[in-house]
Amino acid sequence: MTLPNLSEIELLAVERIRKHGAMSRTSLAKLLEISQASVTAIAGNLLEEGVLAEIGHGRSVGGRRPLILDINPGLGYVAGIDIGATSVDLALADFRGEILSRDSYQADVRVPPEVLLEKINQTIIKMLKVEGARPEHLLGLGMGVPGPVQYPEGLLIQPPLMPIWEGFSIKSYIKNQFPKVVPCIDNDVNIMAIGEAKVGGGIGMDNFMYVKIGTGIGCGVIMHGEIYRGSDGCAGDIGHICIDYNGPVCHCGNTGCLEYMAAGPAIAAMAMQAAESGESEHLIKRMQENGGSLSSIDVGELAAAGDRASIRIINESGKMIGGVLAGLVNFYNPQAIFIGGGVSKIGHQFLSAIRQYTLRRATALSTRSLRIDYSPLGDDAGVYGAIWLVLEHIFALVK
Amino acid sequence: MTLPNLSEIELLAVERIRKHGAMSRTSLAKLLEISQASVTAIAGNLLEEGVLAEIGHGRSVGGRRPLILDINPGLGYVAGIDIGATSVDLALADFRGEILSRDSYQADVRVPPEVLLEKINQTIIKMLKVEGARPEHLLGLGMGVPGPVQYPEGLLIQPPLMPIWEGFSIKSYIKNQFPKVVPCIDNDVNIMAIGEAKVGGGIGMDNFMYVKIGTGIGCGVIMHGEIYRGSDGCAGDIGHICIDYNGPVCHCGNTGCLEYMAAGPAIAAMAMQAAESGESEHLIKRMQENGGSLSSIDVGELAAAGDRASIRIINESGKMIGGVLAGLVNFYNPQAIFIGGGVSKIGHQFLSAIRQYTLRRATALSTRSLRIDYSPLGDDAGVYGAIWLVLEHIFALVK
Repeated sequence: MTLPNLSEIELLAVERIRKHGAMSRTSLAKLLEISQASVTAIAGNLLEEGVLAEIGHGRSVGGRRPLILDINPGLGYVAGIDIGATSVDLALADFRGEILSRDSYQADVRVPPEVLLEKINQTIIKMLKVEGARPEHLLGLGMGVPGPVQYPEGLLIQPPLMPIWEGFSIKSYIKNQFPKVVPCIDNDVNIMAIGEAKVGGGIGMDNFMYVKIGTGIGCGVIMHGEIYRGSDGCAGDIGHICIDYNGPVCHCGNTGCLEYMAAGPAIAAMAMQAAESGESEHLIKRMQENGGSLSSIDVGELAAAGDRASIRIINESGKMIGGVLAGLVNFYNPQAIFIGGGVSKIGHQFLSAIRQYTLRRATALSTRSLRIDYSPLGDDAGVYGAIWLVLEHIFALVK
Repeated sequence: MTLPNLSEIELLAVERIRKHGAMSRTSLAKLLEISQASVTAIAGNLLEEGVLAEIGHGRSVGGRRPLILDINPGLGYVAGIDIGATSVDLALADFRGEILSRDSYQADVRVPPEVLLEKINQTIIKMLKVEGARPEHLLGLGMGVPGPVQYPEGLLIQPPLMPIWEGFSIKSYIKNQFPKVVPCIDNDVNIMAIGEAKVGGGIGMDNFMYVKIGTGIGCGVIMHGEIYRGSDGCAGDIGHICIDYNGPVCHCGNTGCLEYMAAGPAIAAMAMQAAESGESEHLIKRMQENGGSLSSIDVGELAAAGDRASIRIINESGKMIGGVLAGLVNFYNPQAIFIGGGVSKIGHQFLSAIRQYTLRRATALSTRSLRIDYSPLGDDAGVYGAIWLVLEHIFALVK
């Protein structure tokens, strides 16, 4: 832990300001149920330690305008990293979770971990420099990776997209560069769910599901406002739920897995089949323009333009995904399902199909107030979630 | 609330003793991190108020043998009621959750609520009398009912087995008879899950599923050691998860619901079909002995005796149930699944089939340490859960 040694009540004061935002000493005293004299002493110490800062004056409620306390933006920095299969998104934030700068670049996750992480480290150092800060000022780093993670060790377990990362200690590598950093590694879907929970569509929600649909299908489960990891850390692995015992063999070895039959590559494969069978002139034309291939984005565009084969394909995928989500809605009874990931960019027809089949197959009671929407944060869910993951971890000493 | 007005630290002392069991003043002081003098004052007041009692001497650790404090058994009584489709189980307990007496009788849940509840009230009054107590000594009553419940109102919502109970206030009816009672009404599967969590196979577990298989199939979801109800109170409704879009029409109006295809009546129907088609001499003989019908219990007995058709039928049901549980294990990654309900009494072959198909279809990581067993508490899970439901509610003032 890189924060100064604080007493329990001081930590509680910090946590309250972090959760509720900047406030006056009077408001803080009320929230902590302590006297004005005590809060003055506590705030004094926290200001001296550099944990809190006075960021200006609030509105007068009769007397002088009160000074407003907030987490000291200069306390240190945290980085949020979202590693995708083909890209890296980075953000540098202050201790309030406010993003100061962003970066993102294409990268192949199949390279050796040292190569990918070295570039990430150097990018963060550059971002710190712009703020006039050095590596030792980075106090936290949250990271999402596209594979199953053993949390809290932060180790990837049999990651299909990045097998050579198995057993590699990302945490040690990062700590070598940033001596005071607290690293938190989680899988990409979990950090996206955390992003929605803390700063996105899930603010104030007790329980919801974040479903990422791209090359695969995964789910982040929010429970009591926090990420739920399950007993082995693999909760939310919905891509390998069976939807057809007699279906094709998935790369996991089982038959008829949801992601093998309904995710991005399956949508593309159905479209290529429709083109090859002559079902759709539009798909044939697009395939020729693309030099012989089709993507789920192509299917989405052509569906939006009215191509019937594309609409059928998107409906089929939506039906398979909605069928599985309906079962999970019966079981979990969430307030919302947010859909993210690359395939969520193919248009409204896809969301509409998922909604329709989820609502058709789930019980009436469980869908009474269920919201199903594309991820409000979109591509930003990951970096926000990574930042909040590590902020929550750093402050987790306080209940 | 019927307990005396206690300070926060007094309530905390009571809660600790309730959770950890009887203990000396010295142990309590350690647990609360307060001085021996403070704990002496707190215990003195709680003894005077009748909340705690000294129940004897503990082992000496050098000096005099210490007096042991426990929740005063004479503080009052709580009742636990488990209403099934065809039976009522009752238990009277003290405030430590220790069962003092039990009763159970056959009853048809389709009768008007007043009829069923009046008999329950009278039975509790009789049980109280045996203890030398009167109706005003009943301070809590937990009840499980076989239908969807809007918690905390305690109202049944469109209950298929007991439609005339819809909108009937069970709580008011009970309060008319027992002036000081705090009533808690939940659905039967939830209270069974609570029973396993608090005094059964789930003690110390963070998350598990309790699956009841009888006429229907339902699930109680334990999360962080407590029952999880979902955003509309209907979490765990797994009986209507679709396993075959082209399957038969369920009473809920959808096709191919798990409970319609795999629960007790489906097992019986498959057996009757096997008898009628001549597949099994044993099933034909048993059907004749029964006067033309077969139950899931018959199928279990004949499977245990080696009848191949019966083994096939049990495997088919286990395969359907295991397939759905595998998907939920991928999503929820629980530590255990406990199987209860009437059909759980048909023998080991059924458990074995459920295990086999769950493990075959769930991911390797999620089943690494997964336990699948029949409910360790069996028929007692309901009344224990009802007692703990209301005890937890009464003490919920303390975090």
